[in-house]
Amino acid sequence: MTEQTSPQRNAVVLVSGGMDSAVVAAMARAQGFAVHALSVAYGQRHDSELQAAARVCAMVGASAHKVVDVDLRSIGGSALTDDIDVPEEGGDGIPVTYVPARNTIMLSVALGWAEVLNASDIFCGVNAVDYSGYPDCRPAFIESFQNLAQVATRAGVEGTPMRIHAPLMSMSKADIVRAGVELGVDFAQTVSCYQADAGGRACGHCDACRLRAQGFAEAGVEDPTHYR
Amino acid sequence: MTEQTSPQRNAVVLVSGGMDSAVVAAMARAQGFAVHALSVAYGQRHDSELQAAARVCAMVGASAHKVVDVDLRSIGGSALTDDIDVPEEGGDGIPVTYVPARNTIMLSVALGWAEVLNASDIFCGVNAVDYSGYPDCRPAFIESFQNLAQVATRAGVEGTPMRIHAPLMSMSKADIVRAGVELGVDFAQTVSCYQADAGGRACGHCDACRLRAQGFAEAGVEDPTHYR
Repeated sequence: MTEQTSPQRNAVVLVSGGMDSAVVAAMARAQGFAVHALSVAYGQRHDSELQAAARVCAMVGASAHKVVDVDLRSIGGSALTDDIDVPEEGGDGIPVTYVPARNTIMLSVALGWAEVLNASDIFCGVNAVDYSGYPDCRPAFIESFQNLAQVATRAGVEGTPMRIHAPLMSMSKADIVRAGVELGVDFAQTVSCYQADAGGRACGHCDACRLRAQGFAEAGVEDPTHYR
Repeated sequence: MTEQTSPQRNAVVLVSGGMDSAVVAAMARAQGFAVHALSVAYGQRHDSELQAAARVCAMVGASAHKVVDVDLRSIGGSALTDDIDVPEEGGDGIPVTYVPARNTIMLSVALGWAEVLNASDIFCGVNAVDYSGYPDCRPAFIESFQNLAQVATRAGVEGTPMRIHAPLMSMSKADIVRAGVELGVDFAQTVSCYQADAGGRACGHCDACRLRAQGFAEAGVEDPTHYR
C-alpha cells in the first residue's frame, strides 16, 4: 500500500523576524501548510528584523517569502516610525510604540496575497497577554477581521470559510518559548528588539527585550539573544 | 449676537483622483468636515491619477493630502499592477482589474491616519452599482469594516462610534455626475482611465472610460474628459 499524500494547503503567515511569528510559522508548517511568509515593511526603524524574517523563513522551510512596503511614516503617530524616543520601561495605557492600525493593515495585505494564492488560512502572532494595551491584539479584533475576510473576498463570498489563526493569543511569553523549543525553533535567528543594531544585536532595555528575556527566564530556557 | 462656529471635525477621505472620490471629497467638505485626503499608491500604473488627486484636493479645499505607498506588485494578481493587458470591453464575473483586497487595504491605512488625527469618520467612494463583481464594493463589506474599526481602535474601544461613509454606494454614474455638478466639482480635473497617459489623457476604451462617458451621457452633462 503506497502512502497517500494530500496536496499541501497554502497559508499566508505574517513573519516579522521576531520570536512570536517564528513560532507561529513553525506551527503552521507543523500543521502541514505550505507557508507563504509575508513581511510588511511599514517604514520601521528596525530593518534588521527583515533580515531575521528571511532567516526564519529558511528555518521553517517556507515555500515563499514576500516583503511588501507600506510606508506609514507619512501618517506618523508611533515611536517605531517617527523620531520619538523608544521607551526603556513599561508604562500604563497604550504604549507610544503602538503603530496605528498596524495589525489591520498587515492582515489586509495578507488577505490580498491569500486571494491571489486561493488560500483561506492566514496566521499571525497577535498576543493579548503581553500587549493588553493594544486594541488590535485582542480576540474581538481577530474575530472581527475574520468576519471582514469572509465578506471581502471572492472565496469568502462563494462560501469558503476564511480563517484567521492567532495561536499565541492566550499564551504567555514563557509558553511561547516552550512551544518554540518543542518545534525546533532556533530563537538565536530571531530579533525582537525595537532598536536592534544593523547586526541584529538587541539593546536589552526596551519593552520588547524585557518581555523576551523574562519569557526565557520563566521557561527555564537559556536566552540565545545576541545582545550588543 | 455673534455667530457660534463649532470646531471642524476631521475626516479622512480616500481620494484616488477619479471622479467618484472627487464627489465624495466635495460631499465631506459640504458636511463641514476638515478633509484629510489620503491617496494610496499601490504600485498602480496610472500615476497620473495621483496628480489628479492633488488637483481634487485643491479644488475641494482639503486641509491635508497624504500619499502612502503600498507596493502590491510583489503579490500580483491584477491587471492594474501586473503586466496583464487592461481589457477594453466589459465581461462577466470579477474583472481582471480587481486588485486583491484593495478596499480593505486602503481603508486600513485610512483607519491608521484617523487614529493619529482622532478622527472617527472615514469617507470612501465605494460603489455597488458599477462594480457589482467586486466583493469589497458591497454594503456588507462596508458594514463589516465599520465593525472592525470599532474594535481595532483606541477611540472605538473607548466608545466613540467609528463611521465608514460610502455615500455613493447605491448611486448610478449619472447620479454621481449630477451630485458633483451640484457641489461644483470640476470633473475636468479628475482622471478615471485605467491607462491614462502621463498628461492624464484618457484612452476612451477601457471599462472605466466607458462607464464614465455613459454617466455623463445619461446625466445630460457635457463630458469634460481629456481624451488623447
